[in-house]
Amino acid sequence: MNEMRYDWLGDRWVIFAPNRLLRPDNYQALTHRRSIQVNPATSDQQRCPFCLGSEDQTPSATLTLQTANETPDHWSVRVVPNKFPAFDAPEEFCFNPQQGCPSASSNALFMRKQTRGGHEVIIEAPFHVQSITQLPNDHAALIFEAYQQRLTYWRSVHSMRYAVVFKNNGSDAGASLVHAHSQLICTDFLPSDVLKTQKRTLEYLKTHGRCYVCDILREELLVGHRIVSETESFVALCPFASRLPYSVSILPKQHQSAFEECSLNQLQELASLVQQTLLAIELQHPDAAYNYVLQTAPLDAHDPAAFHWRLKILPRLIKVAGFEWSSDCYINTVLPEKAAKDLARHVPTSTPGPKVSLLAQASISPKSSHIQESK
Amino acid sequence: MNEMRYDWLGDRWVIFAPNRLLRPDNYQALTHRRSIQVNPATSDQQRCPFCLGSEDQTPSATLTLQTANETPDHWSVRVVPNKFPAFDAPEEFCFNPQQGCPSASSNALFMRKQTRGGHEVIIEAPFHVQSITQLPNDHAALIFEAYQQRLTYWRSVHSMRYAVVFKNNGSDAGASLVHAHSQLICTDFLPSDVLKTQKRTLEYLKTHGRCYVCDILREELLVGHRIVSETESFVALCPFASRLPYSVSILPKQHQSAFEECSLNQLQELASLVQQTLLAIELQHPDAAYNYVLQTAPLDAHDPAAFHWRLKILPRLIKVAGFEWSSDCYINTVLPEKAAKDLARHVPTSTPGPKVSLLAQASISPKSSHIQESK
Repeated sequence: MNEMRYDWLGDRWVIFAPNRLLRPDNYQALTHRRSIQVNPATSDQQRCPFCLGSEDQTPSATLTLQTANETPDHWSVRVVPNKFPAFDAPEEFCFNPQQGCPSASSNALFMRKQTRGGHEVIIEAPFHVQSITQLPNDHAALIFEAYQQRLTYWRSVHSMRYAVVFKNNGSDAGASLVHAHSQLICTDFLPSDVLKTQKRTLEYLKTHGRCYVCDILREELLVGHRIVSETESFVALCPFASRLPYSVSILPKQHQSAFEECSLNQLQELASLVQQTLLAIELQHPDAAYNYVLQTAPLDAHDPAAFHWRLKILPRLIKVAGFEWSSDCYINTVLPEKAAKDLARHVPTSTPGPKVSLLAQASISPKSSHIQESK
Repeated sequence: MNEMRYDWLGDRWVIFAPNRLLRPDNYQALTHRRSIQVNPATSDQQRCPFCLGSEDQTPSATLTLQTANETPDHWSVRVVPNKFPAFDAPEEFCFNPQQGCPSASSNALFMRKQTRGGHEVIIEAPFHVQSITQLPNDHAALIFEAYQQRLTYWRSVHSMRYAVVFKNNGSDAGASLVHAHSQLICTDFLPSDVLKTQKRTLEYLKTHGRCYVCDILREELLVGHRIVSETESFVALCPFASRLPYSVSILPKQHQSAFEECSLNQLQELASLVQQTLLAIELQHPDAAYNYVLQTAPLDAHDPAAFHWRLKILPRLIKVAGFEWSSDCYINTVLPEKAAKDLARHVPTSTPGPKVSLLAQASISPKSSHIQESK
């Protein structure tokens, strides 16, 4: 059982999940602090738990999807509960839900409660690819369809309030396995930083009668010098005040509150743009670790006119240092205008639709399933 | 000239300092994202800019301090302006200060202004040591005396509002040079996270008539299971809701608002406790990178009864991943009670005062000034 504890001074809940130390390779990272590029679980002795044929190494799937050209007994994208969850599943909740925020301490200074939510892994390919830039576009689109379906499910679960899909790619971005995957976390509380952002978007809507992000987008498209690429429905841009060098946000041009509102055609277009942008980052910074986070409309009651979903790509090129830890004020060494110019050089101009020739071609056959582990 | 830009949605100012890309080794880290343990500047071809004899490689000192047994022409601790500052010095400020927050954009959505503040480096030893655990206690105490003197100076500079001393030790903690050093940053604005914390301490004082940290300390000393070590004046403990595994906060037992209130005797005691705690972390996690941050009372008007200074040690054993970037909600894999128990094993029991036998003895003579660079 995990627990969450409240840091009153910082106004933050912190999740304590000692079970996550048991994840393959993470324990070693904690003990030896060495950069682990190769997951020991993909050595000859032990197969990667995410590869086709290792399904018994993960909990049962909550969703599988298949591309049109996949053989019937194969899956293309597979979603499973995280074997080492940060949040306890709602059915395992032990406290009395009537208590709201049960404190296991008699003292209000040390407030804690059990975690409650969902934690899933989206396994993005049956074979051992490391980046979704290595997948055909229709396969990549299926990953985003899986996000939609699981977000729709979690939106229906009683008392869930916050859900986010995120990807950790590379050791420096917090990944413990190299096989391409992303995660979905859902919680029964709103992290204070998320709540703050929601309050601000509502405040902007109330004051201006418009969505804040729509207003930003209009200006960005007018000025143009922070745009990396755009398609009919989406734009990829380097945000004006990003905390990390070469950060890119991908947004729908027309207001959409929940990511689940995207049509299947739009998902295909989005997948292309994400693949192109990640490839541009990979070409600009070979071997760069990165995270991406998909922020969709709040799960509980909220004005859909206020929230505009976005996918943020966060390359992990610099280390967060003491000043940032002390102040939450970041020092970025690359202006977004320069980052956008650098990345745009690597993006084909004839958007929408990916230049397949530019996308690295993955050898995604069973025979070569582990060839990339020593990359 | 650097600039800061306002992320309205996140309510954060972000500092843009492209000049910091010119720091030795940082550019390489950004391009190749490889773990750099050895600073190229300490190779045979080029001397470390922080070593005795390389004073011409840094700006002129703003402070030098000497231990009693140092030869007259030597310094023991040397403070210099950062050669690659994140903040422009007050005298270089170009905007009209009357404007308060000058926007270089005609659009309020894209607010920016010039940075203004101080950025100094505290070079902690004349010889090439990598950790203050390698220094004799009287030398370590001098480092904290330097912090006091420079904080006192910056407190006197007109319109400065926030100052913090921090240490980045190891590549994963954001260090670009291995020679033991820390930094002081001073700004003319309060980062929003700092402002929030200040508001909360004032709120607690108003409601309870007592300092929040004093109340926490009383409980922690009573329960005892998160205490790592204590001396007559200070306590080292693993905070109840720390974001990172094995975090330790060091606090004065009696309420002190500003770090500058510490007596010279207390500085000696504090230096011992910091050395012991860092050594315990080094023994528990060999080669662990870490940051520490010294948070003192706000520079502008504030109730001294509300703020309690602290030194936070933040080992960088795990990587911040996508969920944390999206929500500012951290997943910690080690309970503070376990961390305190693990670290306490490495701390001598006969406090106060360091067990010199337990402190690694540094060979801090000119002859061996570079022996540790290949560690």
